[in-house]
Order: sequence, then structure tokens, then C-alpha cells
Amino acid sequence: MKKIGVLGAGQLGRMLALSGYPLELDFHFYDTSGKPSVGLGDITIDTKADIENPALAAFLNDVDVVTYEFEHIPLELTQHIESQTDLFPPSRSIKVCQNRAEEKALFTKLGIPTPKYHIVNNAKELKAAVEDLGCPVVAKTTTEGYDGKGQFVIRSIEQCSEAWDSIGNSPKGKMTLIAEEFVDFKRELSVIAARSKNDDMVVYPLAENSHHEGILRYSIAPAPHLNKEISDQAVTYVKELMHELGHVGILTLELFETKNGLVANEMAPRVHNSGHWTIEGCASSQFENHLRAICGLPLGNTDAYSPTCMINIIAVKGDIESIMSLPYAHVHLYGKEERAGRKLGHITVKADTLEELNWRVQNIASFLPGSPDFEGSKNEKN
Amino acid sequence: MKKIGVLGAGQLGRMLALSGYPLELDFHFYDTSGKPSVGLGDITIDTKADIENPALAAFLNDVDVVTYEFEHIPLELTQHIESQTDLFPPSRSIKVCQNRAEEKALFTKLGIPTPKYHIVNNAKELKAAVEDLGCPVVAKTTTEGYDGKGQFVIRSIEQCSEAWDSIGNSPKGKMTLIAEEFVDFKRELSVIAARSKNDDMVVYPLAENSHHEGILRYSIAPAPHLNKEISDQAVTYVKELMHELGHVGILTLELFETKNGLVANEMAPRVHNSGHWTIEGCASSQFENHLRAICGLPLGNTDAYSPTCMINIIAVKGDIESIMSLPYAHVHLYGKEERAGRKLGHITVKADTLEELNWRVQNIASFLPGSPDFEGSKNEKN
Repeated sequence: MKKIGVLGAGQLGRMLALSGYPLELDFHFYDTSGKPSVGLGDITIDTKADIENPALAAFLNDVDVVTYEFEHIPLELTQHIESQTDLFPPSRSIKVCQNRAEEKALFTKLGIPTPKYHIVNNAKELKAAVEDLGCPVVAKTTTEGYDGKGQFVIRSIEQCSEAWDSIGNSPKGKMTLIAEEFVDFKRELSVIAARSKNDDMVVYPLAENSHHEGILRYSIAPAPHLNKEISDQAVTYVKELMHELGHVGILTLELFETKNGLVANEMAPRVHNSGHWTIEGCASSQFENHLRAICGLPLGNTDAYSPTCMINIIAVKGDIESIMSLPYAHVHLYGKEERAGRKLGHITVKADTLEELNWRVQNIASFLPGSPDFEGSKNEKN
Repeated sequence: MKKIGVLGAGQLGRMLALSGYPLELDFHFYDTSGKPSVGLGDITIDTKADIENPALAAFLNDVDVVTYEFEHIPLELTQHIESQTDLFPPSRSIKVCQNRAEEKALFTKLGIPTPKYHIVNNAKELKAAVEDLGCPVVAKTTTEGYDGKGQFVIRSIEQCSEAWDSIGNSPKGKMTLIAEEFVDFKRELSVIAARSKNDDMVVYPLAENSHHEGILRYSIAPAPHLNKEISDQAVTYVKELMHELGHVGILTLELFETKNGLVANEMAPRVHNSGHWTIEGCASSQFENHLRAICGLPLGNTDAYSPTCMINIIAVKGDIESIMSLPYAHVHLYGKEERAGRKLGHITVKADTLEELNWRVQNIASFLPGSPDFEGSKNEKN
């Protein structure tokens, strides 16, 4: 029986464990937040993420392989772990994903289209970038941003200094920003794939993702009305990325679909919120395939059974009992307290047709206060 | 967040927990075997099952509701627990299921057909029973028998004293036996249902079960080629039993299908091996519905998605990696060491048609040494 060490102890680690126990895997979580919510398995808490902490040595001694549920881990820690034991995905994948400049450079190297962008280190450089790109411009910190944090949409050149003050001058010091042209996209897609140590790769059908206030709200998969060329292109991109990185485990690539084809947004070296639909939607979920990959087991089937939608439960839990009364709703709660903007759980729903799926999703969302309207696939209107 | 206390810490408790965490339930197992295999949740070990043990009081203090994964628990213990906190299913269900004589009497009271039988207390009474029933006769201990243990098939009147010595004189003292006429059945079926505190009931499609050496090997559900009248009859029986017992949680009723209709074999007040197919085969599994029922949550959908088969992994694990390479096999291992006759895990497989299902099951079974031949539904040949 293998024991998996997981850096992080939130809902992604929790769902990894729930899919791993049936494969006779055991789990030990290493939490650097001080607020683990995983609720099962062994837990070590080390809020300083200190490589000299004897608890880290004990953790590494207890587990057979280490993985992680989030990429915002000190690189020094991951490199230290990699020098001691197996770490999958490798620290190179984390390093690239931690820095939007490196990530963009890798996309470009592999011929994966990205928005036009500048790397800027002060307000003056930001202004020059905005002049070159033309408004609107999306400014982001190159490191540490997620779920819409560390972003600023610059709609006029006068906003440059406000944007810089807002995200360039952080409490931790001066940040490097990336200023990107605004991409006029039809919809956001994500492609999730797994790679094994021997370069086997499997790819899930693309999901169409809807955000509200910077947080994912709905993922529909397979992405409706998707052109096969577009889908094939996404599969090629994610496979090239995994191969180039020597990635082992799940990699998620977020893409914009534009009238000129796909544009890469960003990637994550881990299981992803837009892949939660795979728990009920596929024979092997993203969580199971991540574990299969890092344990050297054969990768599992990624075909979708039928149109599936994942609905995030954000901030408040809503009327869960009414949702549980619906014959088609699969409830996943994460054991977390309600708080503004927090991901508390998700609901998965499958249907035989997209029309039926839309109706079911709307019905579920009616029991979740604050859920944005669900209007079905964004692509149907194009 | 509710905490569920589970008496027993084997694979059924493990699968209860895996289905309960997504509902924000937490688990504490009370193990009286000294060999817990559950592998997650809190565990208290008390091999004496002593109601005076302070560990029991601490366990009861820690949990909100108590349930159990097996019915061979001292009745005194369950009644003590029931006097202290909520116990579901209630101890009355355990009491009836622990004693084949009481169970048969309840079946008869409710008009549920059973094999003709005699209760016997010595070799002489056994012989008289066999003379009345005619060979073959199935003799069983009224208590403590499961998985074919405590059974003897008497094929000639001369075997009566051998049968008595074999199962009537146990190390624990003289047993009461039940001697049943041999039922000439086409196949064994089981019906699994859940009842909530407010008398709501849901019933899963019947499963067709194949045994080998007294141990369940295959369950196919929905039972192929099942006459609707037979199915409706089974549903009526299990509902009447749950209602009469004031049962809360899952109840399983094992039935023989004969040329004259259904004959009840036995029942179990818990999730059942023949219901493991529901994890992938239904929107809400037997484990989830058991938890919903005992927690006062609405019961979930029990419809089957498609023809499904569950294959038990007995004694040796076989070539699990090859099985994991099959795109349609769902692997569930229980974290137990290999041992003769032991249930180590199961595989679930779904298909669009019965023909495809048969082929897939045969393929999976070819990687499980010692698996009996799978010939598809027993009813196809009738």
C-alpha cells in the first residue's frame, strides 16, 4: 500500500484522497496554511514551510511519493523535497506555473498562441505597455495571483498609476507585472490531461467555463458545439506542454476560444476546479488519473459519459437538502465554513441532452443564493 | 457537520465513509474484531464489546448517530447504545436478522413465502425434520452463520448425525438449527431498499447474484430478463419488512426466483455486497442512501444507469494493473491482506447492452485467478 504525501490540505487534496482509497492508497497532508479542511488522512501543519522543520523530514519519511494540490508553494521547498524523494509533478512544472512570464515564454517556444503582452516593472513601463497594446489591457502580477486576485483591467491610459498602486506595490514589495492585450473571446475553455512517467498521455474532453466576479461558477463538458479542429488543437497543445516539462500527473491548460482560434491563458500543474465534473462524468476522474500517473499505474479512461455540468457552491451553501431531493444532483461539500468568495462545494449533474442539462442546472442554481444566471453554452449564441 | 459512529471497521464501513465525506459527514469506527481494515476516520478498538468500557462511552459521546456494518453484534451492546443515543437501523432489525427463526416468523407473518422449515435442537429432531421435508435439506445455525459458514446440505437421511456434529455442536455450545427444504431455484436475487425516519422508501433495481463456494462472486443489476410482476412483488416485500420493523437505513432481502415465484431466503439490516454495483451504477449509491436515511436527509435516486455487474475479488488480488488498463473497469480495493475466502475488493463494470456486459465481465474475470466462470444471467437459459 503506497502512501501519498500531499502539499496542501484543502478540497483538492480531499477529493484526491477520496478517489485514492479505493486503489489502496493512503494519504498524509502537509499543510502550510494552518487551516486544513481536508478532514481525512494524516495531517502535519507547518505554517512556515520551513525546510529545516523536523516535521518535514518526518513527513517525507512517512510517504512514498509527494504531490501537491496548489502551485503557490515556495519553490525552495519543492526543490528540497525533490532532492529527497519522488515529487510529481516535478518542480519544473511548478516553477513555470508560478511565473506568468516563464509560462508565456514556454507557450511561445512551443508555438502555442498567447495574447500579446509586455513584462513591466514600474508604472512608467506599464503606461508604455498600455500605449502599445491599446485599451483595455489586463494587468496581472507575474506571481501569486489566482481566482481573480492580483488582476486589474485597465480601461483607459489614465488608470495606469492606479493599477500599479493596486497590484504592483504589494505588501511584500514591488511586483513584476504582465500587461496583456484584452482578448475578445467567445468563451473560456480548459483542457485537462494526465501524463505518466513513461510518456503515456490521456486527455479529457474540453470544458466550457463561466466565471463570475473572477471565480469559476459553471463548467460544462464536453464543451458544447466544439469544432473538432479546435479540440484537436487543444489536445496537441496540452500534450506538447506535458512532454516538454517532463510533467507527471494532471496538467490543466486554460484557453480562450476566439474568432481566430485558441489563445492560451494560463496553466496549472494539478487537478483543477474545471475538472470536478469528471468524478461522475467519466470512468476515471481527474483525481484518479493524477494518482495513477504519480504512482506508475496505467492511466484510466477519460471519455465523457454524457453532457455534464459542474456548479460551484460559493460563499453560502444554500438549500442543500432541496438539491439532494433532485434525482440528478450529485452533492460534494468540502467541510468548510461559509465565507465571502470561498469555494464550499460543488454539484455535478449529467443529462442525455444539452437542453435537459440546461434545465437541470438552472433548477439546481435556483437553490444556491448568489449564483449567477446560467444561460447554457456561450457558444450557442455565436 | 454530523459525526457517524459505525460499529465495525471493515470494507462496508470504509465505503460508507467514502460516500459520506462529500456530504460533510465525519466518521468514527468502533471495532470489536481487533483487526480494523477501514483505513480512514477515527477508530476505537474494544475486542470485548464491553458495555462498561469507558471507551464505549467516549465513542458515544463523540458521535451524533450510530449505525453498523454487520449484524453479528451482541444484542446487549446495541440495546445499550440505543438507550444512550440514536441507533439506526434500530436494534429490533438486528435482533430479527440475528436469528433465522425470528426472521422466518416475520416473513410468514407478512405473507412473504419462505422455504418449508423446522426449528431443531438436537440430532433426533433434525432427523425427523429431514424425514418430513425430504432430501436434500439445508441445515443452518439459526444464529451467527454468514458467507456459507454454519451450513450443511443433507443429501441423505444418513447424513443427519454428521450434519448435527458439524454445525449443531459448536465450540460455543449447542446450537439451534433451522432445517429447510431445498429450494429448486432458477437464480438468487436480492432487493436493496432504504427507509427514512418519516417512512419514505426507495428501492434499487433487483440484482441477480451468483455464488461460488458459498461466497458471492457476481451481481448483475438490474437483474436481466426480470418479469415485472416478480420485481413488483420483491419491492412490496422489502417495503413491508422495513415498515413493520420501523427500519431506518438500508435493508437487503435475498430471494430465490423459482418456477412458482419468489421465495425469501434471508435479510440483512445493512448495506450489502450485492449492492456495491450502485456506487457507479446509480446516482445515489446504497452507501449514500444509508447515510441519507440515518441522518434525516432526503433519499436519493436509485435508478440504474445501464446494465452493471459487480465482480468480487476473493482470496487473491490478481492482476489489478491489467484490470486498471481496461477502459471500463472500476477498481475498489479494501486495504486487506490476501487470505483464503476473504473479500479483498470488487470491480464494477457498466455497458450499454447485456451482451457487451458479459464480454467485459469475462475479460475482467480472466485477470482474477480462481474466479468461477461467468456465464451471464442464469435466467437467459430458462
